[in-house]
Amino acid sequence: MKVAIIMGSISDMTVMQEAIDILKSFGIETITDIVSAHRTPEKLFDFSKNAHIKGISVIIAGAGGAAHLPGMVASLSPLPVIGVPVKSSNSIDGWDSVLSILQMPGGVPVATVALNGAKNAGILAAQIIGSHDPTVLQKIIVYKESLKEAVHKSSEGLQ
Amino acid sequence: MKVAIIMGSISDMTVMQEAIDILKSFGIETITDIVSAHRTPEKLFDFSKNAHIKGISVIIAGAGGAAHLPGMVASLSPLPVIGVPVKSSNSIDGWDSVLSILQMPGGVPVATVALNGAKNAGILAAQIIGSHDPTVLQKIIVYKESLKEAVHKSSEGLQ
Amino acid sequence: MKVAIIMGSISDMTVMQEAIDILKSFGIETITDIVSAHRTPEKLFDFSKNAHIKGISVIIAGAGGAAHLPGMVASLSPLPVIGVPVKSSNSIDGWDSVLSILQMPGGVPVATVALNGAKNAGILAAQIIGSHDPTVLQKIIVYKESLKEAVHKSSEGLQ
Amino acid sequence: MKVAIIMGSISDMTVMQEAIDILKSFGIETITDIVSAHRTPEKLFDFSKNAHIKGISVIIAGAGGAAHLPGMVASLSPLPVIGVPVKSSNSIDGWDSVLSILQMPGGVPVATVALNGAKNAGILAAQIIGSHDPTVLQKIIVYKESLKEAVHKSSEGLQ
Amino acid sequence: MKVAIIMGSISDMTVMQEAIDILKSFGIETITDIVSAHRTPEKLFDFSKNAHIKGISVIIAGAGGAAHLPGMVASLSPLPVIGVPVKSSNSIDGWDSVLSILQMPGGVPVATVALNGAKNAGILAAQIIGSHDPTVLQKIIVYKESLKEAVHKSSEGLQ
Amino acid sequence: MKVAIIMGSISDMTVMQEAIDILKSFGIETITDIVSAHRTPEKLFDFSKNAHIKGISVIIAGAGGAAHLPGMVASLSPLPVIGVPVKSSNSIDGWDSVLSILQMPGGVPVATVALNGAKNAGILAAQIIGSHDPTVLQKIIVYKESLKEAVHKSSEGLQ
Amino acid sequence: MKVAIIMGSISDMTVMQEAIDILKSFGIETITDIVSAHRTPEKLFDFSKNAHIKGISVIIAGAGGAAHLPGMVASLSPLPVIGVPVKSSNSIDGWDSVLSILQMPGGVPVATVALNGAKNAGILAAQIIGSHDPTVLQKIIVYKESLKEAVHKSSEGLQ
Amino acid sequence: MKVAIIMGSISDMTVMQEAIDILKSFGIETITDIVSAHRTPEKLFDFSKNAHIKGISVIIAGAGGAAHLPGMVASLSPLPVIGVPVKSSNSIDGWDSVLSILQMPGGVPVATVALNGAKNAGILAAQIIGSHDPTVLQKIIVYKESLKEAVHKSSEGLQ
Repeated sequence: MKVAIIMGSISDMTVMQEAIDILKSFGIETITDIVSAHRTPEKLFDFSKNAHIKGISVIIAGAGGAAHLPGMVASLSPLPVIGVPVKSSNSIDGWDSVLSILQMPGGVPVATVALNGAKNAGILAAQIIGSHDPTVLQKIIVYKESLKEAVHKSSEGLQ
Repeated sequence: MKVAIIMGSISDMTVMQEAIDILKSFGIETITDIVSAHRTPEKLFDFSKNAHIKGISVIIAGAGGAAHLPGMVASLSPLPVIGVPVKSSNSIDGWDSVLSILQMPGGVPVATVALNGAKNAGILAAQIIGSHDPTVLQKIIVYKESLKEAVHKSSEGLQ
Repeated sequence: MKVAIIMGSISDMTVMQEAIDILKSFGIETITDIVSAHRTPEKLFDFSKNAHIKGISVIIAGAGGAAHLPGMVASLSPLPVIGVPVKSSNSIDGWDSVLSILQMPGGVPVATVALNGAKNAGILAAQIIGSHDPTVLQKIIVYKESLKEAVHKSSEGLQ
Repeated sequence: MKVAIIMGSISDMTVMQEAIDILKSFGIETITDIVSAHRTPEKLFDFSKNAHIKGISVIIAGAGGAAHLPGMVASLSPLPVIGVPVKSSNSIDGWDSVLSILQMPGGVPVATVALNGAKNAGILAAQIIGSHDPTVLQKIIVYKESLKEAVHKSSEGLQ
Repeated sequence: MKVAIIMGSISDMTVMQEAIDILKSFGIETITDIVSAHRTPEKLFDFSKNAHIKGISVIIAGAGGAAHLPGMVASLSPLPVIGVPVKSSNSIDGWDSVLSILQMPGGVPVATVALNGAKNAGILAAQIIGSHDPTVLQKIIVYKESLKEAVHKSSEGLQ
Repeated sequence: MKVAIIMGSISDMTVMQEAIDILKSFGIETITDIVSAHRTPEKLFDFSKNAHIKGISVIIAGAGGAAHLPGMVASLSPLPVIGVPVKSSNSIDGWDSVLSILQMPGGVPVATVALNGAKNAGILAAQIIGSHDPTVLQKIIVYKESLKEAVHKSSEGLQ
Repeated sequence: MKVAIIMGSISDMTVMQEAIDILKSFGIETITDIVSAHRTPEKLFDFSKNAHIKGISVIIAGAGGAAHLPGMVASLSPLPVIGVPVKSSNSIDGWDSVLSILQMPGGVPVATVALNGAKNAGILAAQIIGSHDPTVLQKIIVYKESLKEAVHKSSEGLQ
Repeated sequence: MKVAIIMGSISDMTVMQEAIDILKSFGIETITDIVSAHRTPEKLFDFSKNAHIKGISVIIAGAGGAAHLPGMVASLSPLPVIGVPVKSSNSIDGWDSVLSILQMPGGVPVATVALNGAKNAGILAAQIIGSHDPTVLQKIIVYKESLKEAVHKSSEGLQ
């Protein structure tokens, strides 16, 4: 029960690190790799075809610009794939990243999160595991409680 | 192990029916309801707070315009929530639906699919169940094989 | 006859402070709080359900990204709700904030002002009170006169 | 305690009629007129300068394309002005109407509602009156209850 | 035969100065003023109604955000009006400025130039005068020649 | 003192006819031709280089998609050039037509009117002539009066 | 010296047929196939890896929505790849198709043509062949001459 | 067998240099020049009309804003033209540059690459030459292999 976090370029790591961190905080094992749809298509194939055999439950894929990585992984793997649109330097304000991940054709979904939303990708992966693992579900509930507490504290600070 | 399909208005049903149909074809039980974030907020609360207790594993929520339903369900439930942006009559070409579902703040993800992508929402829900249920995973693999066959047939028809 | 100013996050305060300041300059009482639609949904409910009972006349709600706070307050309160789209760090150039506040479905309006337009939200709240309170109406008239004077002065400076 | 509904062209009437209808259903008196910022600027001046003297409490102004009517009325009147962006035939998918009404400079707010959202403009006008008139406030509460009932009915029809 | 350059705010001067400079370089007399559609509507009326009587041939109007100045001047004056969309601090990437100046309804044109294109507004005003004044037309021809020379020089520098 | 109306394709004629009609109604002589920047570049050169010699005062150029005609004419002629963005069948909702005409570089202005705004292009051309021809100026004043009358009539019809 | 025309779905054929037709008119051999990046990724691999060995000189790939086909072919083949963004039924006004084809990362270009621009894709393929084949170059020159003639004829028809 | 790299302004050189560098690395001869569609139209004509006679095989043209250079070169030359949209200072987030290069009408294609994608323009030019020159094709294959190696190395660095 592992979550794989892959990204198209090492430069996406500043964004994607948040997915790793939040998953670790939930005690969920992660593996991380650079897999470029456009520069290492064979690796993309090998990784995607075999992920579900190697004990991976969910795949998080981040990419920017004409971001084909999440969709191509979803094409090749039966696992749920979470796409993180990255606002990379070659992106037009992030619109290209968002649309080329979100607008997948019928039959091949990618669970898309907000622009640069790697943290939410990690939480979503945990929720997917939590949907059948009561321990993780409980951790999600506690996490949400902590979000609430933080708001209450900032509210008190205001008064 | 059920999937709940909710939507903000009965008029979204023409789009959302595809989610129900594909889940049925995978033999996954569904429940369907109209839950409006803006017109029935109490029902939204009750539904979202209790879904994970009532045997629901995944929630699919469809809405259009300033589409707050998926995000508010995600705020209240620890389960994975899949959002379907609906291109409703009061939408600006679908952009409002997409952005108000996709761009959730850190802490509260919504797994967003393409505009009107209810079918993909159903497949994604099945993949989430399949991530820990080998029978469903196998059905996903078979389904993807059928997509391939359809393309090969249309390719042969071309020659 | 108070105006409530709420926001989704303490980080919105730099923008929302302008609403408080202008209302104070009109001598209108304000209360301010952090209410997050996604992190404190119960507080959102309590606040919105009871605002009109507690002597609040108008609610100003600011939020960014997939900004559900103004619309959800409008769903739960019979009072006029003014929405301030905030260009927060997780926003796509402000478009998500604007559209997810503006494009409310029929039945549940939000009076939307410009991106980061908290000052105008404050003035609008004063105008709403002024629509039945001659003292406040007179202050609005004086305020508008002062805007005129400022332009005339900068015009004279130019010559 | 009247609401004025004005619009830039008689062709906007198909959209704006909804504002009149909903206000009538709340028992609120309305007056309707064609006032074009670009073709009858003098009438715009006369109307706006005097509206608050003639017993009007709220002004609803609808216009499309480079829609200057709501903002110019707001420039000239101390009353709250609600702007309805109309998706007219000369509009670029409604974006011009929305942005030229919403993005008012500091000092001169327009309470903007959704594209073609005349019904919501009417409800908002009623809420503004209801903020100090308990009878109208009660009608808003009843109206919101009726929205809820309609959803519950469509939900029952679904089962 | 004068060109008037007006703008909604003194802060637009950094952009609009280029119009003044280029017109001066063509030897065309200019007058400059701050006229705010939203803050000094009476001045807008006076200026626009009388410009053609006071020896002004062309009006250049710059404004940002919901930019109503150029269109309102065009509504009130029979003279050709050139609109300069200014990317002001309260603008959504300039789109609001552009659309609220460009998309004028049938009957009331504004000659719109590029975002922040005050220099081109000045040249266009000179071309309008040049269309019936051979001396100015000749200056335009010489100016265009100088543009060509500049490119040829930078081309030579490259080799 | 003629106005030339050119367009990139005969299919633009349905839009551009409005420019011809309004100019005729002002008693201004027009000449019309098809000049394609991309298919007849030599004709573009000949036409643009010589227009000011042949008694033409203003050039109106309409084109759609990547609309280079107005800008290239402006590059080659010292006359004022009015650009009409046409929403042709190969256009992305008109955005390409608008931006490729409006966003001219410093030195080479195109006076851009609204999408499909050929009628306004005609009026603008008349205003340019009217800026130095009192007879035409008077006609513009009368025309504007007629716009006002039409609104007053539709207003009376409403009461 | 063949041109391959592939597309993601048989439904793209109505658009892509124009590429085949224009290439036939230049006497250039074509082969056509359905290759879906998302449904037949293995076929995508086989086709792309071997195209340059099988006598293909240029690949034209058409796809809509999150259009990954052109980019993935470009990732796998050393040949020039021309991408045709198709405005398919699941597209957001074509923006997703355009951006997910155009915005390729450094190292892997796709020669993108206009939305639905299959005809231009065919002409571009012919120009690529013509860049080293004088017979085809001559045909391009003749073709361009025919475009000119068509404009001259429609111009004459106008007079 | 040369590639010409032209651009509208010397300021585009910072972007366009990448095209020159990558072509040099493939051992392909280049010539570079400043050719402005709007400021040096005659040079544009001379260059474009004669490029194919002077041993040039492919033309790369970069420009920003209302970017007419690539399309006008394509209008005048039978050679394949690659357009590089430059995000220049006078551009609206690059959208004007992209759309005015990409959306060419039927008959006159421009092979458009990503915003500021000069490097990819160079690679595409090399691929066009490589489509009939086995030595260059081999270099492309080696180059793509090097991209793969770079990813594998960054992947190893991660572990």
